Amino acid sequence: MPIAMLHIIEGRSDEQKERLINEVSDAIARSLDAPKESVRVLITEMPKQHFGIGGVSAKKLGR
Amino acid sequence: MPIAMLHIIEGRSDEQKERLINEVSDAIARSLDAPKESVRVLITEMPKQHFGIGGVSAKKLGR
Amino acid sequence: MPIAMLHIIEGRSDEQKERLINEVSDAIARSLDAPKESVRVLITEMPKQHFGIGGVSAKKLGR
Amino acid sequence: MPIAMLHIIEGRSDEQKERLINEVSDAIARSLDAPKESVRVLITEMPKQHFGIGGVSAKKLGR
Amino acid sequence: MPIAMLHIIEGRSDEQKERLINEVSDAIARSLDAPKESVRVLITEMPKQHFGIGGVSAKKLGR
Amino acid sequence: MPIAMLHIIEGRSDEQKERLINEVSDAIARSLDAPKESVRVLITEMPKQHFGIGGVSAKKLGR
Repeated sequence: MPIAMLHIIEGRSDEQKERLINEVSDAIARSLDAPKESVRVLITEMPKQHFGIGGVSAKKLGR
Repeated sequence: MPIAMLHIIEGRSDEQKERLINEVSDAIARSLDAPKESVRVLITEMPKQHFGIGGVSAKKLGR
Repeated sequence: MPIAMLHIIEGRSDEQKERLINEVSDAIARSLDAPKESVRVLITEMPKQHFGIGGVSAKKLGR
Repeated sequence: MPIAMLHIIEGRSDEQKERLINEVSDAIARSLDAPKESVRVLITEMPKQHFGIGGVSAKKLGR
Repeated sequence: MPIAMLHIIEGRSDEQKERLINEVSDAIARSLDAPKESVRVLITEMPKQHFGIGGVSAKKLGR
Repeated sequence: MPIAMLHIIEGRSDEQKERLINEVSDAIARSLDAPKESVRVLITEMPKQHFGIGGVSAKKLGR
């Protein structure tokens, strides 16, 4: 019953997010020897101005 | 001072979310014998393509 | 598939926490008209010195 | 490597959020004697109807 | 700069958790085409009595 | 009513954590022009083997 909450910068395609869900679920199942069916993944997309690195937003840093 | 963070699939009405806040706050206050006034509830709505179940998004699963 | 993360001050009995899980799951299922089986609840217990209210820890506040 | 997740009611300007990231990063670096470069800050903005205080949303409370 | 917060039931060895960190970081880097160095993973271990499934703790369910 | 969840590596003294609560609450109140009394801070301490940087735990990295 592992639950993964993934925080990423916004701007990925639905295909990338679908792949992210699948690969992270596989990685968890494999590492913990748990059934993949039991894994939950929640993606939170963040605007660049909401993500701070060393005191400055990713937007201002130009990332 | 309990804090509840609720992650739900998007698409509920404001009335349902108001009811969710009220009922969860009641449930916590009752179970812990804590004043309802002290309970905080934060709802996070998630798009179906951001919620993975067994490696597949709720969108793709048709839920 | 709602997921509730509950942050509470440590010191509750297992019975209280079992009741908390049950009542919060009921409240969510009822409010959202979702199957109770699909609800996940994660409890995080926090020491009083890790919980700040208005800039002071619950421990120092004597709660 | 401290990570701060800040949940605030929506409606702040980008300038306020940039300042929030900077000041919280400074506060963490200073308190923990950690390099500011290592601090990460994630801001989550919440609609007023998603934030419950004592069983009622901030929207309904008129805040 | 993706950040993954993983909630798992307690009881895994340090080797399993090290592998979990490595494989999830790889999965994220691969799916998002992001540098692995930028990925952060936070593992939270939960006692069985703190994890509710359908209103009952994993402990009581015998999992 | 801002809520800050701070994830830090374990090993700080109670004095440092009390200071962390106070300074982060001040920083939030100042940046958002919000009353300090309304700020909540939750500290989560993480063992070094639960914190991954670029696919390796902070423990293995010797931090």
